[in-house]
Amino acid sequence: MRKHLEIFPVTGLPEVAAGADLAALIADGTDLRDGDVVAVTSKIVSKAEGRLTYGTRQEAIDAELVRVVAQRGETRIVQTRHGLVMAAAGTDTSNTAPGTVLLLPVDPDESARVLRTALNERYDVNVGIVVTDTLGRPWRNGQTDLAIGAAGVRVIEDLRGTTDSHGNVLAVTEPALADEIASAGELVKGKADGVPVAVLRGLQDAVLPVGEHGPGARALVRDAEFDMFSLGTREAARAAVLSRKEPSGPREVDPAVWAGLLRDVDDVRLELGDNAVTVFGVEPVTVGVIAEKLAVLLHAEGYGVTVRPGPGAEATVTFGSRSR
Amino acid sequence: MRKHLEIFPVTGLPEVAAGADLAALIADGTDLRDGDVVAVTSKIVSKAEGRLTYGTRQEAIDAELVRVVAQRGETRIVQTRHGLVMAAAGTDTSNTAPGTVLLLPVDPDESARVLRTALNERYDVNVGIVVTDTLGRPWRNGQTDLAIGAAGVRVIEDLRGTTDSHGNVLAVTEPALADEIASAGELVKGKADGVPVAVLRGLQDAVLPVGEHGPGARALVRDAEFDMFSLGTREAARAAVLSRKEPSGPREVDPAVWAGLLRDVDDVRLELGDNAVTVFGVEPVTVGVIAEKLAVLLHAEGYGVTVRPGPGAEATVTFGSRSR
Repeated sequence: MRKHLEIFPVTGLPEVAAGADLAALIADGTDLRDGDVVAVTSKIVSKAEGRLTYGTRQEAIDAELVRVVAQRGETRIVQTRHGLVMAAAGTDTSNTAPGTVLLLPVDPDESARVLRTALNERYDVNVGIVVTDTLGRPWRNGQTDLAIGAAGVRVIEDLRGTTDSHGNVLAVTEPALADEIASAGELVKGKADGVPVAVLRGLQDAVLPVGEHGPGARALVRDAEFDMFSLGTREAARAAVLSRKEPSGPREVDPAVWAGLLRDVDDVRLELGDNAVTVFGVEPVTVGVIAEKLAVLLHAEGYGVTVRPGPGAEATVTFGSRSR
Repeated sequence: MRKHLEIFPVTGLPEVAAGADLAALIADGTDLRDGDVVAVTSKIVSKAEGRLTYGTRQEAIDAELVRVVAQRGETRIVQTRHGLVMAAAGTDTSNTAPGTVLLLPVDPDESARVLRTALNERYDVNVGIVVTDTLGRPWRNGQTDLAIGAAGVRVIEDLRGTTDSHGNVLAVTEPALADEIASAGELVKGKADGVPVAVLRGLQDAVLPVGEHGPGARALVRDAEFDMFSLGTREAARAAVLSRKEPSGPREVDPAVWAGLLRDVDDVRLELGDNAVTVFGVEPVTVGVIAEKLAVLLHAEGYGVTVRPGPGAEATVTFGSRSR
């Protein structure tokens, strides 16, 4: 158990320019001790690293994204090269000159490692580093600060397999420690105040020995393949007709997938094979409609799928290669 | 700017039973001061309120949910009566007797108000209360503690319209303060240690005057209608064929919705009307397939939609009433 946590803002930092020595600025601005965790806003890391680009924000977002996760109007939630899913790819136009856009650090974990190493080698202090940014969340209003980079700090506390005070095994509990550190730091930082650094004292147990940087904040990024929300609601429906995979190889399918679909349709019959379902009917347009509905439902379950019109009122939906 | 934040665990609390006096337990276990924020794990609130039910966890989840947001295997992400989107509807079987399941408080904001009022009236202290629970997140590994109930504390800092240190207007910045408080408190609480309460000192500016409870954590819940992730990827695709709304009234539609769809299809022609698009073709099964694809794409854009086979190789897709 942690006994007592203190969080200090690091005040009085000058405006950070490209090439700035962040380690010196932070070490001069506070009295760092072994075991402290330093939460640094990514914005000043980016500025120090000269991550300013010329052009419009939309151009910058286009260059930073690897895929669009969801879009409504002008708002684009995208996945960045870092794997982060966030609005506007983390680009920033506040506190920047007109016509310029600030990008996220190229590798925020590496930025954290460089800063940690500099603080250790030049100021003889062993601290953990968390590079933070502000992210919105599905289902919740407002934003919280999360960890986009980390070094020398445990990012996830794996409590799986440990027991609670009653001896029950804690099955799925993995607190995202680095994210909670980022949120806690934000309570004393503050966007409008120009305090981009906070120091958390009392988390010694979460700070790694000198030389060990740990897995970084990358470990907090869930692979889209394992995510139940890899696309927005609208984008998932669009993908179901526009971005289907080709089937490959026979795979079993549970007819429960389309149970209920045929409730209101007369004169349509399905025949299920190893890796295909054939739709027979009287009215061929309806056969096409039902075949396409089956294809969407199979896609939703992760199957590759194609629809092929047969002779007359018949269509074959071929499926295979469950992918998620 | 906040100068300095301290977070203490409240230790030595006894096991909480139904009917327990939480205000007394917390006030006895710590030296509360005006302006403190008390972060209380929902689990002990539920226990004090006797929110234990008999049966299986699945039965409890079924009773607590208002809709299933996403499901993979046994894992169900659901929306609860409170509006919260979370795994297993917040039900808990750790630290409970076999055959029993602990549910979330009926109204965590009300629980927070009752606790705040009791601490004020009986111990003469004005503190903010945040009731916390542990929630998973899309796109990120691990869980963080968030606010599911709150009283006497600002839950969102609305910085929209304020300026940064350079005079730029902060357009979309609304820090979810109560969520960041919950995450910060978790850093000294801890699931395995049996420390269910933390006190945060230094957030006086976020604590409301006596008698004002504020909007509660309910203000942090985003309405599904305004959420780009109101369903899981799989569920969104399923809903696109199984849960479409009926169209009502003419509405304009941008043919860009289906641009690209007809690239690989020969002999199909579309005719766009006020609130319908008619598909003409040579091969009627293909006409049905295309009509259904159009319907899914229109559904994705928020239109109510129906597909009606026409005479011969023709189908009409009627749309209207854009809903989101």
